Amino acid sequence: MSMPLSFQDIILRLLTYWKDQGCLVQQPYNIQVGAGTMNPATALRVLGPEPWNVVYVEPSIRPDDGRFGDNPNRMQMHHQLQVILKPDPGDPQERYLKSLEAIGIDPRQHDIRFVEDNWDSPALGAWGLGWEVWLDGQEITQFTYFQQAGGQPLDPVSVEITYGLDRIALALQGLESVWSMEYGAGIPYSDVLLASEIEHCRYYFEVADVEALKAVYDTYEREAKRCLEAHLIVPAHDYNLKCSHLFNVLDTRGAIGVTERANYFRRMRNVARDVSALYIAQRQEQDYPLLHRGRGQEHMEEVRAQTGEPVPASVGPHPRDRGPGQAFVLEIGSEELPAADLTVALAQLRTAVPALLTELRLAYDTVEVHGTPRRLVVFVPQLASYQTDLETVVKGPPASRAFDETGKPTPAARGFARSRGVEVTALQVVEEKGGRYVAAIVQETGRPATAVLAEALPGCIAGLTFGKSMRWNATNVSYSRPLRWLVALSGPQEVPFTYAGVTSGRTSRGLRPYSSPPIVIDDAANYARIMQEHSIVTSVEARQATITAATTALATRQGGMCHDDPDLLDEVANLVESPTVLCGRFEEGFLALPAEVLVAVMKKHQRYFPVYAPDGRLLPYFITVRNGDAVHLDMVTTGNEQVLRARFADAAFFYKHDTQQTLADCVPRLATLTFQAKLGSMLDKVRRLEQLTPSVARLLGLTAEETAVAQRAAALSKADLATRMVVEMTSLQGTMGGHYARTSGEPEAVAAALAEQYNPVSTTRPGLALALADRLDSLLGLFAVGLAPKGSNDPFALRRAALGVIENLVANQMPFDVRQALAEAAKLLPVASDAETIAAVLSFMHGRMEGILRERSIPAAVIRAVLAEQGHNPYAASQAASALAEAITAPDWQAVLESYSRCVRITRQLQETLAVRPDAFMLPAEQTLWVASQEAAASQDGTVDRFVAALRGLVPAITTFFIDVLVMDEDIAVRNNRLALLQHIASLPKGIADLSYLEGF
Amino acid sequence: MSMPLSFQDIILRLLTYWKDQGCLVQQPYNIQVGAGTMNPATALRVLGPEPWNVVYVEPSIRPDDGRFGDNPNRMQMHHQLQVILKPDPGDPQERYLKSLEAIGIDPRQHDIRFVEDNWDSPALGAWGLGWEVWLDGQEITQFTYFQQAGGQPLDPVSVEITYGLDRIALALQGLESVWSMEYGAGIPYSDVLLASEIEHCRYYFEVADVEALKAVYDTYEREAKRCLEAHLIVPAHDYNLKCSHLFNVLDTRGAIGVTERANYFRRMRNVARDVSALYIAQRQEQDYPLLHRGRGQEHMEEVRAQTGEPVPASVGPHPRDRGPGQAFVLEIGSEELPAADLTVALAQLRTAVPALLTELRLAYDTVEVHGTPRRLVVFVPQLASYQTDLETVVKGPPASRAFDETGKPTPAARGFARSRGVEVTALQVVEEKGGRYVAAIVQETGRPATAVLAEALPGCIAGLTFGKSMRWNATNVSYSRPLRWLVALSGPQEVPFTYAGVTSGRTSRGLRPYSSPPIVIDDAANYARIMQEHSIVTSVEARQATITAATTALATRQGGMCHDDPDLLDEVANLVESPTVLCGRFEEGFLALPAEVLVAVMKKHQRYFPVYAPDGRLLPYFITVRNGDAVHLDMVTTGNEQVLRARFADAAFFYKHDTQQTLADCVPRLATLTFQAKLGSMLDKVRRLEQLTPSVARLLGLTAEETAVAQRAAALSKADLATRMVVEMTSLQGTMGGHYARTSGEPEAVAAALAEQYNPVSTTRPGLALALADRLDSLLGLFAVGLAPKGSNDPFALRRAALGVIENLVANQMPFDVRQALAEAAKLLPVASDAETIAAVLSFMHGRMEGILRERSIPAAVIRAVLAEQGHNPYAASQAASALAEAITAPDWQAVLESYSRCVRITRQLQETLAVRPDAFMLPAEQTLWVASQEAAASQDGTVDRFVAALRGLVPAITTFFIDVLVMDEDIAVRNNRLALLQHIASLPKGIADLSYLEGF
Repeated sequence: MSMPLSFQDIILRLLTYWKDQGCLVQQPYNIQVGAGTMNPATALRVLGPEPWNVVYVEPSIRPDDGRFGDNPNRMQMHHQLQVILKPDPGDPQERYLKSLEAIGIDPRQHDIRFVEDNWDSPALGAWGLGWEVWLDGQEITQFTYFQQAGGQPLDPVSVEITYGLDRIALALQGLESVWSMEYGAGIPYSDVLLASEIEHCRYYFEVADVEALKAVYDTYEREAKRCLEAHLIVPAHDYNLKCSHLFNVLDTRGAIGVTERANYFRRMRNVARDVSALYIAQRQEQDYPLLHRGRGQEHMEEVRAQTGEPVPASVGPHPRDRGPGQAFVLEIGSEELPAADLTVALAQLRTAVPALLTELRLAYDTVEVHGTPRRLVVFVPQLASYQTDLETVVKGPPASRAFDETGKPTPAARGFARSRGVEVTALQVVEEKGGRYVAAIVQETGRPATAVLAEALPGCIAGLTFGKSMRWNATNVSYSRPLRWLVALSGPQEVPFTYAGVTSGRTSRGLRPYSSPPIVIDDAANYARIMQEHSIVTSVEARQATITAATTALATRQGGMCHDDPDLLDEVANLVESPTVLCGRFEEGFLALPAEVLVAVMKKHQRYFPVYAPDGRLLPYFITVRNGDAVHLDMVTTGNEQVLRARFADAAFFYKHDTQQTLADCVPRLATLTFQAKLGSMLDKVRRLEQLTPSVARLLGLTAEETAVAQRAAALSKADLATRMVVEMTSLQGTMGGHYARTSGEPEAVAAALAEQYNPVSTTRPGLALALADRLDSLLGLFAVGLAPKGSNDPFALRRAALGVIENLVANQMPFDVRQALAEAAKLLPVASDAETIAAVLSFMHGRMEGILRERSIPAAVIRAVLAEQGHNPYAASQAASALAEAITAPDWQAVLESYSRCVRITRQLQETLAVRPDAFMLPAEQTLWVASQEAAASQDGTVDRFVAALRGLVPAITTFFIDVLVMDEDIAVRNNRLALLQHIASLPKGIADLSYLEGF
Repeated sequence: MSMPLSFQDIILRLLTYWKDQGCLVQQPYNIQVGAGTMNPATALRVLGPEPWNVVYVEPSIRPDDGRFGDNPNRMQMHHQLQVILKPDPGDPQERYLKSLEAIGIDPRQHDIRFVEDNWDSPALGAWGLGWEVWLDGQEITQFTYFQQAGGQPLDPVSVEITYGLDRIALALQGLESVWSMEYGAGIPYSDVLLASEIEHCRYYFEVADVEALKAVYDTYEREAKRCLEAHLIVPAHDYNLKCSHLFNVLDTRGAIGVTERANYFRRMRNVARDVSALYIAQRQEQDYPLLHRGRGQEHMEEVRAQTGEPVPASVGPHPRDRGPGQAFVLEIGSEELPAADLTVALAQLRTAVPALLTELRLAYDTVEVHGTPRRLVVFVPQLASYQTDLETVVKGPPASRAFDETGKPTPAARGFARSRGVEVTALQVVEEKGGRYVAAIVQETGRPATAVLAEALPGCIAGLTFGKSMRWNATNVSYSRPLRWLVALSGPQEVPFTYAGVTSGRTSRGLRPYSSPPIVIDDAANYARIMQEHSIVTSVEARQATITAATTALATRQGGMCHDDPDLLDEVANLVESPTVLCGRFEEGFLALPAEVLVAVMKKHQRYFPVYAPDGRLLPYFITVRNGDAVHLDMVTTGNEQVLRARFADAAFFYKHDTQQTLADCVPRLATLTFQAKLGSMLDKVRRLEQLTPSVARLLGLTAEETAVAQRAAALSKADLATRMVVEMTSLQGTMGGHYARTSGEPEAVAAALAEQYNPVSTTRPGLALALADRLDSLLGLFAVGLAPKGSNDPFALRRAALGVIENLVANQMPFDVRQALAEAAKLLPVASDAETIAAVLSFMHGRMEGILRERSIPAAVIRAVLAEQGHNPYAASQAASALAEAITAPDWQAVLESYSRCVRITRQLQETLAVRPDAFMLPAEQTLWVASQEAAASQDGTVDRFVAALRGLVPAITTFFIDVLVMDEDIAVRNNRLALLQHIASLPKGIADLSYLEGF
């Protein structure tokens, strides 16, 4: 192995490489920026139609990435190398990969991957789609196709390649920490940067004067606006950059609340938008000078000319063999599709292709659909070479007008025949709706499959839709990622068409680690074999199976196992074309960190499978998948291990920081986190929960001890949101609260309640009280300020909150009066919430309960019947619904219901409740029913079963009553006493169900 | 000629060049800085003992250099390439010149010069000595040996090389304006930078909010201090840089007064000092990590070991030939000496070397001293090879104790003889002060000249002193510029010694344009011939003669002439080793600018000789001198023409800006220029002058019309200080006031008065009034606030002000009562100034007058006599002193003086002035003297001549009086009347001179 390059040599090589690619070489910006994107050489130049190719280094400042020099590769300042290619040269990934080779990164020795990562800068009004590039699991580059900047859609799209120079050097020098790298000239990187790194961290985290810097922000924003008024574009942009840096510092100091944050973003975005608009106008005024230089524009026009509408292809000579047909393959080659997009696209093709072939009258046996991140494959083993012929009957003029008296065709008939291309003698007479008409039998001969497909395939590809799609070249076609090649073969023959500037042919591409060599497909029938020969596993299922088997084997070898994780498996299998599974290890010392943290890092950040011992504890191993074969797998493994080490070191940094204080110490900082503008800060919410949770506990029937635990948990409930671990990994909220409660010496019960507060099901009673209080506060509060979900828009996840309440109570078999709890919550809110609001929340919850119960196949009528009476008590309602659903399946149910409904129907009009006077009954049937109904009432325990049993018991007495007794007696007193009796029976299911909703009532 | 490099290629080549020289390649700083020096990679790294070699680009922001993109090479942002070499590698100039070759600058095609330019940053507490490097007259690089930074002396010294990349690219691409250069990748420099340049200029000059930015400055200074308290070095430095940029913006907005400026500098310097001290402590705590790496330190120790004390050289075998001696040459080779230092050094050597040789007892015929910027040469055609022998008589014990009675030597004598190395028989007896002693005659044999010189020459070089000297290597020896080689030969033999780390030998260096080839001197006798062969003109006078002759010839060819300018000739001849004179031209359009401006630019900035037509107008030519031969002289000429074009364009920019308003419009802006804290702003001073000038005019006897002119001129007198031309070129103050007065439509007389206000001699009477008023206001005001000059410290140039008043009045033969004028001035000052202050000012002026009159060889007594009576009236005093000096040379003067002094002596004790009662005279002699004295008094006109004539006429009467009359009569009335008569005579020279100061009184 040759001597690895120093940091400075890497920079000079890359600058020279991109210079040789025709890039302008610019300097870093002289204002602190968070990324090279903010340099006007990107931020402004990507706007407008002019070509622009540039490369420059950008030392980038991200204060909250500061780790006081403790982390091996995370710093408040890292060095970016920024490349902009505008327009897309057509092969930016290949150019990029060659640049890595130029600095000595051999793709055969590593695992280089393009992993979906989209980019969105709320402060710049900009977004784009692309990837992070992984080198052995390490993110070394951000690769983005800019779609919008400064609020302006971009045309042409720019390719942005942002290298993380420090991490690349780290990997190249094969070291564990940037601080041991060589910068150049024999000087360690640490000597150049470490002291300054630590000092800046201390400044950003501990020293910066928040109020003073806020004032400077305001001043600079005003200066930016003064510049805008004077049409001073770059000076305005400069001030916006300064504002952005100030914002970052304030944020790192913990001085920016959630809504404040959005407000700052809005302010910066406004300036960015105006700057962009002025810049575009300025360049336009100058008549886009760069548009008239170089080849950029010509290239663009060229591409644009090839675009949009599929070009009808001229189909070559073709044997008019109508035999059994041939194999067909379509391969849509693209830059790496996001894992989810691959899944979505395959599903769409599985439906769309058979439909299309049918529509095209192309007979086929089966349609196979496969895919990897770089290719979607449609394979049809047998596809007819020609469309099936079509015979259509075309109705013509009435027979009476088509033939004269002699039966000879009239001019009308002749004209009709001519227009349809048939002999007039071939016209037939058909009857339709009582009329008789001439008709032509038109024979449409099937066209060659190649011709038909050439016309149809562009539309087929265009029909694919993705969650987010992008433009990349002058055709402005949208797709998940840039489409780079198309293979379309019918047997040995090309199916020629053009889409998105790409013309189909027979050349596919090989694996990335082999530098994507061209692969020529001689015949569609050989497609699968050829792919296999090139180690490309096109089948998702095959990749998954390989991964699963290898993962199990490797875990077993370490005496452990991997838990099933279908989502992770799906994703991992969709990130590679040729999976090779490897097992790496990490320092056992990291096992001292909470397992949830380690697992979250491995799965979420790195897509690794954690390895567990039989007793459920984590083992110091991870399993991951490389794209490609096993050549130099050791290097890939080592690289991944280093990445994980840095990640874990970061987590350890947070953990250490967080545990230097108690969880209770974090609570005051919640004052800076806004929950919602009108509902106050997170601290305000915690204060409410401290009061609400005991009320909820009382309603749940908790003991005094349990209530005290719940209240303490409520007081600490959101504290972990102010810890660095949770700020960094939101998914660990609650979990970390529990951990930190333990390390802070809180009682175990409190910790447990905290840990499970966001879980769907609480396992402790104090935890349940807290979880309910939290969600009810959110529901009522947000409804009260008018933020109830509308349509599919549910930014505060209130559907989930409501479901959480319901499912938790049901799972815990815990009756609970939500209505009463909401009334308690209402007292604590800083805003008014009337009965109507509470009713709205309850109705919203009914909606959720209805959904849950329907999934249990409970009839809608039953659900409505139960919810009408018990909707405020989810568990009870759930129980009742099941019981009632069961009850109505009894053979005598209709009779029972009919008996009851008679009682209800006759009393329904009564406005008041009448009192029964037992001594005033006139007939035995009255007396009998009265006694029976009293007994029935006495037997109730609120369950459906008791009620139904009681009701069933009343049926004879009711029947007799209605036979023997005329309810509507003329004596009003007699009548009212009888009505009172029936009213009494009608009210029996009160609080259980409203049977009037049921069928047959 | 090959394709010139693009801007970006120049940068990449230079970075690579310096990388290959062992430099670390860093990035520009991410804060707006005025120069690469401010980047911590320089500002901090030059501190302390560690080696450091670095190169980086630094886009540098100097708002007040902004020209709205109108100037061909002056911009608010230019690109520096910064190189730091620490310690001095011994040949930094050569490395630098090779870097120029690396980008295609062939030294044979250009004129590359090192022109003195010292560097001083009051805001950084830093200074250094060095040069600007000229490429065909264009400053392309600043080359500095840092002596101090952050208030800390530097050891080792750092070499700082700061390339002006834009100007270098401009010269390389052979274009007239940076705006037409190529940046790279086919993109014009203007497309990358022009719009932003114009916008930034508009922001800095027109838009920036002064008050808001001042507040930010204060905030940032506080943050810097908070950082310092927390020992956060780089963050503190960053804030200081931000303050510096804010200061520059405020300054460009014209918002910073003179004292405010000093105050801002002080504030920035304080932070810089603390940052530096903390940085040094930090590195020390880390045990100077870089000191233990690489070769830097070893090299330093090595050099240090060779240092300081001259190392006694072992002198090789030497023929003991005591013949007529041989030629001797000493050549002290150095980096380019400043022109003035060369002159000073030659003068010192001309005195010191003969004295040294005499002291060393080395016989010589003559000593020739020559010099060029790179070498000081001492040449002795015949120098004795050996010292002359020395015979010394050493006194021993008294003869009485040296010999016993028998005359035999005692042990004392024997011991003495032994101690002196003589035989006891050789002792002699000598007499001294009446005693008799034994004595030894000690013979000291002369040592070889080479040995003696080897010991003495280091001291000789060390004895040279310069206005400013510097250290450069670990020896820490001081010299004008780094000393790089030493030739010391006695005939063919080397005189070996070491000084400042350089060991003498026989190898000299050739001309810079020939890449300074080594030149071996075989024998001292051949030195002059060898130098001549290498085209080096060592004689200053020879170079001057060549330049004068060629200048005259070239000017004549253009139909013009050059004015004699000995200072410029001195300087120019001292900037080259081999002068070749060339004539360039400039666009006639520039002649529309004031000639003084053009001349100032040519002479001051470019050291060009302007060419005048016979009628005195400027011609569009300039003459300059190249170092080297005439090869490619056309390219050098073109280069110089382009430089001048840019300079003139700059002047035109100022002129245009200034003439867009009237001169009167500038007056209010004087409020921001502080004259002196207690004396107010320049505007306050102008307001005073408006009142004082009419008073002065009255005292001068000006007409009403003249007075009005003077007053208007006073109102405008300092307005030009607020013009951009004068801000840029202070030497044009007054001159530009006159010009702008004319363009503003002021009367010609006002313009003339303004133009000459700073001249030593006024040519108009209003001009005189203004000049006097201005200087008297300054003198009195600054004395009043305690700022009278002390010792050699005269920061407000009050000596010059006083001389200006005196010489102007004398030259204009204008009597003027300074005392009265000061009394008027006192009324206007914002501070109290009592009679004592006025007396102090007058006394200070007497001192200056004494000096002036002494230079006219007027006896001190005469001067004192006159000043005692007329010191407040310089012209009158001057006249009187001359006359009196003449008068006292008359043969009868002593008699005349004696007569007068008798009158004075006898009346001197009288306290009061007695009245003469003519009717009470008793004797004719009294009567006669009274009449004569009355006639004498009546004949007076205030001149010395009249007075002396009258006095001479009184002599007989006085003589008779003293013979006939007893003054001290017993009758008091008689006595007093006689004393009154003599008092009257004694008072005759009142207001003319106090004769009692004269010799013989």
